[in-house]
Amino acid sequence: MSLNSDTRVILLAHGSSDPNWQATFEALAKPSCEALPEAVVGYMELCEPSLEHQIARLKQDGAARIKIVPLFLAQGRHLREDVPAMLRGYEQQYDIVLELTSPIGEHPALAQTIRTIVGDILSSESPA
Amino acid sequence: MSLNSDTRVILLAHGSSDPNWQATFEALAKPSCEALPEAVVGYMELCEPSLEHQIARLKQDGAARIKIVPLFLAQGRHLREDVPAMLRGYEQQYDIVLELTSPIGEHPALAQTIRTIVGDILSSESPA
Repeated sequence: MSLNSDTRVILLAHGSSDPNWQATFEALAKPSCEALPEAVVGYMELCEPSLEHQIARLKQDGAARIKIVPLFLAQGRHLREDVPAMLRGYEQQYDIVLELTSPIGEHPALAQTIRTIVGDILSSESPA
Repeated sequence: MSLNSDTRVILLAHGSSDPNWQATFEALAKPSCEALPEAVVGYMELCEPSLEHQIARLKQDGAARIKIVPLFLAQGRHLREDVPAMLRGYEQQYDIVLELTSPIGEHPALAQTIRTIVGDILSSESPA
């Protein structure tokens, strides 16, 4: 994968008031951020750093374009309506190009990994 | 993995009013359901079949115990509060043992797959 030098990536998570929720997402995003130094995590709501905070910071660092990859299993109202509306506002506010990609859940590799994980969870939690 | 013959599995998804959302979850669950004939998908809200519908149906089919595996990326309020409260009610109502497992997002394999998927998404959506 090659990105232009002025392109950055935000891995978009929903956010939650639950204190352990953010730690799980940081762990989920860690290998991606290690592989992609231009990627950071941003939260739609209820957690910091917010999506807007990350857009403002990346713009200040020289980004002209940000690809926003939703760490969501599927597209619901948030990804079809709320997030696009937020992005249209931020594009004007921060004079930057924001591109929302498909969510990770629509990639066929995820279903295969879920099969492995479900098997592991059931094995580890089954009585001997 | 071996489950007792009277144990069944529900893959729990959140649910959404978005018509494409359910199709994505059915695709995400398909390899798991093919590997585990005792597994079905149930939705917490806004989609059918509901979690309660699946519990009632599996009980009627002879299940004494159901393991409920959340197809959630992390534990937020739903998995810490709402779902356990629902399950306590259903256990009494349907005279069945319901076990909520950890969500798929806490398994380390998911973070590695997300790295691959994020790379693929960015490659496929980058301009040539």
